[in-house]
Formats: sequence, structure tokens, C-alpha cells
Amino acid sequence: MTIANAALDALSALLGPRFTTGMAERELHGGSETFHRAPPPEAVAWPASTAEVSAVLAICHQHRVPVIGWGTGTSLEGHALAPQGGLVLDMMKMDRILSIDAEDLQTTVQPGVTREALNLELRATGLFFPVDPGANASLGGMASTRASGTTAVRYGTMRDNVIALEVVLADGTIIRTGTKAAKSSAGYDLTALFVGAEGTLGIITELTLRLHGQPEEVAAAVCGFPTLEQAVECVTATIQSGIPMARIEFVDADAARAFNAYAGTHLHEGPHLMVEFNGSPTSVQEDVARFGDLAQEFGGTGFEWATTAEDRAALWKMRHGAYRACLALRPGATSLTTDVCVPMSQLPAAVAAAAADIKEVGLIGPMVGHVGDGNFHAQMLIMPGDAEELARAKGVATRMAQRALAVGGTITGEHGVGLGKMGLMPAQHGAALGAMAALKKALDPLNIMNPGKMIPVLA
Amino acid sequence: MTIANAALDALSALLGPRFTTGMAERELHGGSETFHRAPPPEAVAWPASTAEVSAVLAICHQHRVPVIGWGTGTSLEGHALAPQGGLVLDMMKMDRILSIDAEDLQTTVQPGVTREALNLELRATGLFFPVDPGANASLGGMASTRASGTTAVRYGTMRDNVIALEVVLADGTIIRTGTKAAKSSAGYDLTALFVGAEGTLGIITELTLRLHGQPEEVAAAVCGFPTLEQAVECVTATIQSGIPMARIEFVDADAARAFNAYAGTHLHEGPHLMVEFNGSPTSVQEDVARFGDLAQEFGGTGFEWATTAEDRAALWKMRHGAYRACLALRPGATSLTTDVCVPMSQLPAAVAAAAADIKEVGLIGPMVGHVGDGNFHAQMLIMPGDAEELARAKGVATRMAQRALAVGGTITGEHGVGLGKMGLMPAQHGAALGAMAALKKALDPLNIMNPGKMIPVLA
Repeated sequence: MTIANAALDALSALLGPRFTTGMAERELHGGSETFHRAPPPEAVAWPASTAEVSAVLAICHQHRVPVIGWGTGTSLEGHALAPQGGLVLDMMKMDRILSIDAEDLQTTVQPGVTREALNLELRATGLFFPVDPGANASLGGMASTRASGTTAVRYGTMRDNVIALEVVLADGTIIRTGTKAAKSSAGYDLTALFVGAEGTLGIITELTLRLHGQPEEVAAAVCGFPTLEQAVECVTATIQSGIPMARIEFVDADAARAFNAYAGTHLHEGPHLMVEFNGSPTSVQEDVARFGDLAQEFGGTGFEWATTAEDRAALWKMRHGAYRACLALRPGATSLTTDVCVPMSQLPAAVAAAAADIKEVGLIGPMVGHVGDGNFHAQMLIMPGDAEELARAKGVATRMAQRALAVGGTITGEHGVGLGKMGLMPAQHGAALGAMAALKKALDPLNIMNPGKMIPVLA
Repeated sequence: MTIANAALDALSALLGPRFTTGMAERELHGGSETFHRAPPPEAVAWPASTAEVSAVLAICHQHRVPVIGWGTGTSLEGHALAPQGGLVLDMMKMDRILSIDAEDLQTTVQPGVTREALNLELRATGLFFPVDPGANASLGGMASTRASGTTAVRYGTMRDNVIALEVVLADGTIIRTGTKAAKSSAGYDLTALFVGAEGTLGIITELTLRLHGQPEEVAAAVCGFPTLEQAVECVTATIQSGIPMARIEFVDADAARAFNAYAGTHLHEGPHLMVEFNGSPTSVQEDVARFGDLAQEFGGTGFEWATTAEDRAALWKMRHGAYRACLALRPGATSLTTDVCVPMSQLPAAVAAAAADIKEVGLIGPMVGHVGDGNFHAQMLIMPGDAEELARAKGVATRMAQRALAVGGTITGEHGVGLGKMGLMPAQHGAALGAMAALKKALDPLNIMNPGKMIPVLA
């Protein structure tokens, strides 16, 4: 235990039963959904207000206790692990929706609100919050990892949908970033600095988010393609001709094959595009027709589309079921999931090189991705505890990242750095990593905010 | 002259004829389009490459010479003035378009490329760069002030359209921020930090920008409204029903009256909305029809629309001619233009309060604005050199900013801080200004980058 007794006493006095050093809660807050591992934190706290977060950080600052934010625990890169010990701050008791400002297309929420809870509350307003990383993550966690998902091509990522924040800095200072205006040119963009900072610069205690009108009509379409090149060319042509897509996903031949084996369907076992269009009934119909024409031009086959919720769900089930279907290819396996993102024109080559590499090392790794963003995931199936297999998969992941960097891409499109991508940060950022380290030192000179993450030179 | 002779000699040796201390160039680089004034800088340099910018900054860092970036000199708040002396770095010789990556919807340019020069070059590609602040500004300057304009409601501001940067830091270090991928979760968002930093953290030497497809069809519509409240309610309803607008502007009764006097037209002298729709011929026609229905619902009259370039230009001439028309209301006058931005629901009250205040102090101040963003400008007409009138106008501007802050808005939506908004920064940011100062000190410890700007406590 490295936390001073004085700090433990102060935290206990402050939070009462909402603070513990019991092993059960420490272990619950010391795990990860993926293969990343670290010893459990030394204590767990559940603050209920911004003032409490501020008081906790003031204590931790005084006693140099590491502080790690915790949401739903669904991050994929070990962001919320405590490799240097310290206190996990579970933000899930701060789960109130503070206001819904429908006229301003905004809502203000506490960080423990999940995206599904928010959208449930928004249902009657005609508005919705579009960012969808898959998991029912907390909005504070989604902001901290700069999450996105299938709708980013139309609605953007958390970068684009967080308007303002309340943040508690390392020493307990409470600041507000941004305003409730739609735009501002007044000073440094602190909102953007905290979005994606993974809790290394401060703890988010309130978020103002951009809302969007629920589309009047939604259409979904699925289409097979002879090659991924042709599928991507079709997407590029669609975007360039101004046809707005709400989602544009691909699954590769392995993923389609996995789905056939898992669900007993009879899909063509080649690359598929899954597209969604939002708009008025007329515009959606026109979009689907124009996309269908373009798909045909690029060799698309088996084009199907639907607008009822039921039929759309049937069309999208391949994409939504992909993760489980792929896991079922190898009973008992877990997955190492990659996350590179490249300029869209580089996507076919990047996917082809990854597929060849995965085959070369003898692994199974179906791929799915967000074509409109150039972001794709290989889901490499490895047996839990098999260190040699894990090393092979990590080798593939590293080479995928290196190839992405070589064509101007990024080592992580939406999962974040956490523990998993630390080693690749110098290759991606070069001298800019020094600037990041300077910013970190400026806001957290004692390095107590999620230490050991984000900035390798400080780890 | 506070620049050490050793620094002058080193800069002269480095740049030859592209460096001067001659008064003519110093005065050309020491002015402002508006009423802001400062003594001219002590020297002017025209670097031609990133390496030269780096070498200049290394020299200036060594000798503690202030460095102020300069583009087209069209900023409205005195951003590029040199109140603490030093060197103006005129970036307009770095004016090459380095690549147009049509497939990736991107271009990479040097900071001296203007938005019109870029769009001219893009014409044949079917793509365009949408951010339009009015002036034919340099893209480096637009990024540095986080500029936007009439198209922000559809395409976003510079924050949304700058993907990656090359920046030279205060000590000459060259860094790259962002990547050419459409999104990234790898580290702090340095791109967003330099966009809007007004040259106080470094000099932008390269920008990668997001491009958009030229719309197949453009329709423009104009409609009068009995009150601004009704006009804004119409806009809110339009946005909520998902009708995409490319521009949505208002001009108030005074501006319409000004235009009648200036151009001999016979417009209804009340508030007007000017709307533009982009899309396919079918979708645009549908959008216009649906907007027309909504306008009628909210009391709109005199609804007109057009799709040919000529007819559209005729409809938009009121908005585009507003600045000159308003100036002509008072021959010989210059203008103090305000720039607050509020949550959209607060716009009618903010405009009404501003109008009453302007009347109260006995000034003429027609208003125009970007309704979809909640951003509006009062153009107060004052006689050059009349200090008392300037003080009255400044009083109105300050009260407008204070009222904007009281309803969650910002002191500047798109013009930036410069010298003009420094005094309001503490009121807007509170404790967050301390965080901004810490970031500034981290990246520019000697305070040589555009000193006296952005951070009042360092000024």
C-alpha cells in the first residue's frame, strides 16, 4: 500500500461508505475487458458531486496519490487499470441528466450517464445522441477516449459532439471549458484537449453534448462486392457525389463466412458493404437508388434494402453479430482487436496487407470496419493464457500500426491509447510527443492523473 | 528598437532581402482593418520554408524577440499587431498547394494560400473548401483565429475542417499534429489546440484540410418575418425536422432599410431570413418546399427562391451588400463590429437587448447574423477619430458580451480575441484562464509568441 494513512483517513472521512480499500471492490475496479492486466488499485471511491471530486483530488494531490477515472469498465486498451497503484474514482454515481435543451439541440449530463440511458430519456423529444461505440459506455468515458463508432461518418466522433465540459484538475481546481454557444473563437480549445486525454489531465464532471434530430426515415442497404477495392471505390464515389450516409460499414469474407457458420445463413462469402441512410422518405429513397446505381457500377451484387425497423435489423444483423460470430470460429478463444485508421484511399491495401500478415502467422482474424473513416478492426482469435499466440497477434497489430503510420494514418482510430498503444506513441508523434509531455506537466506537475498512460516518457 | 543587433544580423544573414527593418514595410505590417492600433513592429521577415521559420524562431528564442504571424491582415481584432514590438513573420510567400487528395477528400497547403486561391484550384475536382469568413483570408490565418462564417451551420468552422498541422514551436522545434486519417484517438488533440491559438503557441507552416463535394444543386430562398423571434423559431423547427441548410442568415430591419437606401430596392423593412440548400435537384426542391411551409407557419411573408446562379445572387445581394450598405447610412463612418454567439434559443432576446442598447446610446447599428450558430454582428457606425463615440460603441459591445456570457454564450463566435477581447477573457473563462496560461507557459516559456495576446495575466 503506497497511499499514506493520512490520505486514507481523509478520503474515508470525506466519503464515508463511498470509499473502500476492500479487496472485492478493488478487484472489480482492477480488471479489463481484454488481455491487459495490472495489479488492482489500492482503493476505490464513488464521488457523488463535483465538489466531492474536487475534495478527493485535493487530498490526492497533497499526498501524491495516483487517481484513475472509471466508467463502465468497457475500454479495450486497459485505460482504467492502475499500473502504479492509487485510487480508482468510479464516476457512475454521478449519473444525472442535468438538462435537455431541445431548442438548442443540447443536453448537459454528468459523466456516469450511459449513452443508452441518455437516448432513452431523449426518445420523446425527437432528438438523439448519435455517437455509438457499441458498448453501452458512460459518456464521461466516451469523451475521455474520444470514442466514435459506426455513425461517425455522418455525425462525427466525441470530438465533434462535446461542446463544453466541467473538469476537475489535478489539484482540485474546478474549471469550465467551452460554452453553450454552437461555436466560439475565445481562447484555447480546452474542450478538445480534455476529450481524448484519457483522464491524464483531469476528471470530467459534466458534459454538454450536441444532439441531433431523429431522422424521419431510415433505410438500410447491404451489397456484396467482388473485392474490397471495388467496395471502397463505391464508397468514395458515393461520398464525392454528396449522398449523405449515416453508416457505411464493411465486413470481409472471413467475417461473412463466420456469420454463415454461426447463424446458418447463406451469405455470399465475400466482402460486403452495409449502408444506412437518414432523411425524409423522399430523400432516403433517392439516396438508396443512387447508391444502388453506384454499387452496380463498381461490381456490387445482391443489393438489398429496407426501411422498416424489422427489415433493417435483419439486414444489419451480420454487422452487429460479427463479434460473437467471429469468436465462435474458435470455441474458447478470446480476441485481440486492432484499431488502425488510414486515409480512405489506403484502406484496401491496408486490409489486404493485414489479411496476408494474419494468414502468415497462422491466426484467424476476420475484419470489419468503418469505411467512411478508413478505420478497421481485425479480430484475432487467441486462446486465453497462450503467451506465444498473444505475442504473434501483438506482432501483427504492431505491423498493422506501422503500415498505417507509413501512409499517414493513426495507430488508433477510436479505441484510444491506454496501456496497449503506449509503445507506438513515439512512432506516431515524434517531436509532438514532447509538446504533449509539456502540456501534461503543465496541468499535472506531480503526475497523479492516470500516471503511466499516454506519455511514455513519463511512464 | 529592442531587438538585439546580433539577432538582426542573424536574421539578415538567414533571409537576405526577405528581411527588413525599413519603415515602409513595418508600417504595412503594423496596421489593422479596424480601430485597433499599436506601434509598428521593429522588423518584417518573409520566410519561404518550414526550415526557415524554424531557423527564425530559434534566433528569436535565443534573443527573446517577440514573433507575430501575419497573413492577409484582414483580422478584425488587431490579432497581428505588435504591441510589445518584435518581428512580424509574413507567411504569404509560403503559398503553395502541396497536394490535393481527392479520394481522401483532403488537401495539404502552406499557410499563405488564400481560401479563394484554393477553391480556384479545386474547381475541376468536384470538391471545395467551404469555410468562408467573407474576406479572402489566408488559410493559416483562418486556422489561427478559428474562423467560420455563413457556411458553418452545414460544414462547421476551421475547428472541424483542419485535420492536421505542421507547427514550429517557440524554440524552433518542428512538430506535426494529427494525421491524414479522418479520425484518431491517439493522444492529446494538438491540432485543436493550435487552431484558434492566434499564433501564441507556435507558427503554422502546413495545414491538411477537409474537402467537401461541390453540391449538385444549390437553392437560395429569402423570406421576411414579422419578428426575429418568429424567424428564429422557424429556423429551430427547420433544423429539428432534419432539413439540412447550407447557410441560414438573418438581416434585421435596419439592415434591410439600409439596403433600400443604398441600392434603391423596395424590400419589406423588417427582419429577413436568407437560406441556402445544397443537394441533389430533388432533395433541394423538397427542402425548399418544406422550409416554405415552415416559414408560413411562423408568419413568414414574401417567400422567394431560386436555383440559377444569377437568381441566387440577386436573392443574396442584401446579405452580401449589407456591410457597405450599412456604412452608407452614415457617410464617412467606420464600423465597430461585435461578434457574440449565444445558444440559438437566446438569439432573439440577445438581438433585442442589443438593439435597445444601441438606440439608448444614440448610435446606428444594423445587425446581421448566422442564425443556425446563434452568432450575430452589430455594425455600429462611428466617426473615425471620435474617441467619445468609440467609447460609447465599446460600451455597447462590452454589455453585449456580458449578456451573452450570462446566458451561456461566448464573447466571440468567429472573430477571435486579438487585442479587442482581452479584457473579457477572465469573465468568460474564470479559473480555466489559469489552465490556458499554464499551457502557454509550457509551450512558450519565454513568452515570445505573439506576446500581449490571449492570456491577460501574461500581457
